[in-house]
Amino acid sequence: MVDVAILGYGTVGSGVVEVLTTNKESINKRAGKKINLKYVLDLREFPGTPIENILTKDYEDILNDSSVKVIAEVMGGVEPAYTFVKKALLKGKSVVTSNKELVARHGAELLQIAKDNDINFLFEASVGGGIPIIRPLNQSLTADEIYEITGILNGTTNFILSKMADEGLDFETVLKEAQDRGYAEKNPEADVEGFDACRKIAILSSLAFGMQVDFEDIYTEGITKISDVDMMYAKKLGYDIKLLATSKKKDQKVYAMVSPMMINKDHPLSNVNGVFNAIFVKGNVIGDVMFYGKGAGKLPTASAVVADIVDAVKHLERNIVSFWSTNKMELTSIESVSSRYFIRLDSKSNEITRKQIKSVFNDVEFVKIEDVNNEVAFITESEEEGKLKQKVEELKNNIVTEDILSVIRVDK
Amino acid sequence: MVDVAILGYGTVGSGVVEVLTTNKESINKRAGKKINLKYVLDLREFPGTPIENILTKDYEDILNDSSVKVIAEVMGGVEPAYTFVKKALLKGKSVVTSNKELVARHGAELLQIAKDNDINFLFEASVGGGIPIIRPLNQSLTADEIYEITGILNGTTNFILSKMADEGLDFETVLKEAQDRGYAEKNPEADVEGFDACRKIAILSSLAFGMQVDFEDIYTEGITKISDVDMMYAKKLGYDIKLLATSKKKDQKVYAMVSPMMINKDHPLSNVNGVFNAIFVKGNVIGDVMFYGKGAGKLPTASAVVADIVDAVKHLERNIVSFWSTNKMELTSIESVSSRYFIRLDSKSNEITRKQIKSVFNDVEFVKIEDVNNEVAFITESEEEGKLKQKVEELKNNIVTEDILSVIRVDK
Repeated sequence: MVDVAILGYGTVGSGVVEVLTTNKESINKRAGKKINLKYVLDLREFPGTPIENILTKDYEDILNDSSVKVIAEVMGGVEPAYTFVKKALLKGKSVVTSNKELVARHGAELLQIAKDNDINFLFEASVGGGIPIIRPLNQSLTADEIYEITGILNGTTNFILSKMADEGLDFETVLKEAQDRGYAEKNPEADVEGFDACRKIAILSSLAFGMQVDFEDIYTEGITKISDVDMMYAKKLGYDIKLLATSKKKDQKVYAMVSPMMINKDHPLSNVNGVFNAIFVKGNVIGDVMFYGKGAGKLPTASAVVADIVDAVKHLERNIVSFWSTNKMELTSIESVSSRYFIRLDSKSNEITRKQIKSVFNDVEFVKIEDVNNEVAFITESEEEGKLKQKVEELKNNIVTEDILSVIRVDK
Repeated sequence: MVDVAILGYGTVGSGVVEVLTTNKESINKRAGKKINLKYVLDLREFPGTPIENILTKDYEDILNDSSVKVIAEVMGGVEPAYTFVKKALLKGKSVVTSNKELVARHGAELLQIAKDNDINFLFEASVGGGIPIIRPLNQSLTADEIYEITGILNGTTNFILSKMADEGLDFETVLKEAQDRGYAEKNPEADVEGFDACRKIAILSSLAFGMQVDFEDIYTEGITKISDVDMMYAKKLGYDIKLLATSKKKDQKVYAMVSPMMINKDHPLSNVNGVFNAIFVKGNVIGDVMFYGKGAGKLPTASAVVADIVDAVKHLERNIVSFWSTNKMELTSIESVSSRYFIRLDSKSNEITRKQIKSVFNDVEFVKIEDVNNEVAFITESEEEGKLKQKVEELKNNIVTEDILSVIRVDK
């Protein structure tokens, strides 16, 4: 029998209790030992719930109980999670977590402490909810040099973009509905501005490339500027608009970016709709692989946390090696990365505007949709971001009185 | 340093050598030890190749060399692979294999021998080529009770069906092209009749449900009867036709089947085209997850073999538990499974034929496409296979002079 403790009885914490109860028998069989939930830490009271009698408000109870070998941290936020987790690892207790902020900021350090103590720090649930991605990166794709990871890593924004595409609604209307249905927070910034996806791609990049990728270094653009008219153009062009988090290695240089992107309808990520997430990985021998599933939600996330608990129990005094050094990786600026831009701008005379556009961009593909007049839209050819941005500036200066309505990256 | 041997220097075997050479540094780092390729077994000569000096024709050389700790069996076929692998495991050498025939037939026994000897028998490459699916099933989805696995498990048939759909060509024409391009064997039976997919779903079902599923018990139907006209109807209906291998558990009963299936274009498997494979798994807490990638080919398959070598080297004297007992699982007959059928039949008078159809099937949806006359096509409502088959028979008897052209299952 192995005693475990859960820190936090919120959505994920209660999900973990539910999963451990529902699938008790098969979980114990796979862990090879009986898993006994001894403590749940939370400052609130939960009278009448199954955890009533194992609730504690004092973390020291758990930390000082030498029978507790595995702790699941599902509180979220950097503090006090970081302090709690570090103390646990230093005491020789394995920790599993769903906390992306904690892992993105302190993953390398906590992995090192776990390694030094022959225990484990596992975080499958911190990226992609229930989708197995951390373990496959660590243990399955070991024959490969990974050179690209691109994912739809945030369910809220994917729900919003899918609904905008399907129903022709604008961003604000769909955001409101997502908030009403509990898919988006009252303060939706972390999701819609891409911050959540940014932390997740930082974690995946660090694991894939074996060095610390700081999330603050990752170029991050959200979806708040995407309009219903952009969606109409995307449809006309045979594209979907998705918020992609991507990280690529070329000639020993790595860049990372979170940005809305027009992708072709035959791209495997294009069919990833609603609250689903997917992560696309490219390796030098395996080629393309993709992992798909629910990226959030109580039970899918709890499924990943419990799978980590099982792994921690199976490897109580044996470190499962991860390669994520504390050495910082310097990312290349995206200015030198090639992109194509989709650009829309106001226009009083389409003929004149098109001429002006052609004077700035060498080779453009104009797009016209019915019912949308007084504007010109086009896709540029592939060029370095730095140069494209200069040209957009130049366009703004040449066409003084007219506004640029949208600039959206287009997948090659 | 750990010595390893490869049995068979065909496509996969030479791929394994290539991967071990190309990514040597990162592979050794992940394995935690230097991997040294000491022998390659093959009856042919390979003068001038990198393996010239380590080639042997005598398996005893490898078996009796106590420094060899891991053997990669990539010969294919049941014999002599089975004899070689069993001998190796009994001698305390871990074995990794890409051989689906071997695993489907003897997997349970070989896993048990490996367990008894504290070594490993690994077979990630036997299903889905490079796609990580065996390890995720064993190690990631451990919190879940799996109740469905559905996959596109054969790249050759998926290439053929994708091309038929895209280009409006008939089966024979596309098969010929696939053979010319090396995507299909000269004798394509194993692929086009579904036998290959059948062995793979047998392996996945055995692992997911923990008991021996015999591939001979699985209802298997190939794609040879799918015509270009069927594809036209599928397109009209918003469906794709895919060869699906599926295995479902309901109320403690399991059924498994390989069959062409019309699936909705918004199903995640619908966008899996060409030689790509994908495996869709449903668990009681994780919900839906999908794994996607190249299901065959030299390097993707070699990537999975080498990942298994790395895992075997990391766990030299420690069994990685798999739950696949030798107890046979009795499958439920598909007669009691609910399906919908798409049916086409010759018709001299559509009005009369439709009336006759309605006299047999309660509630049908007729489909009409341009340029196809003298036939009637429809989709039945969902009903047990047994009853549907009876009704098709009845139809044959009622409409004596006219032929039934197609019967294809439709996903609900």
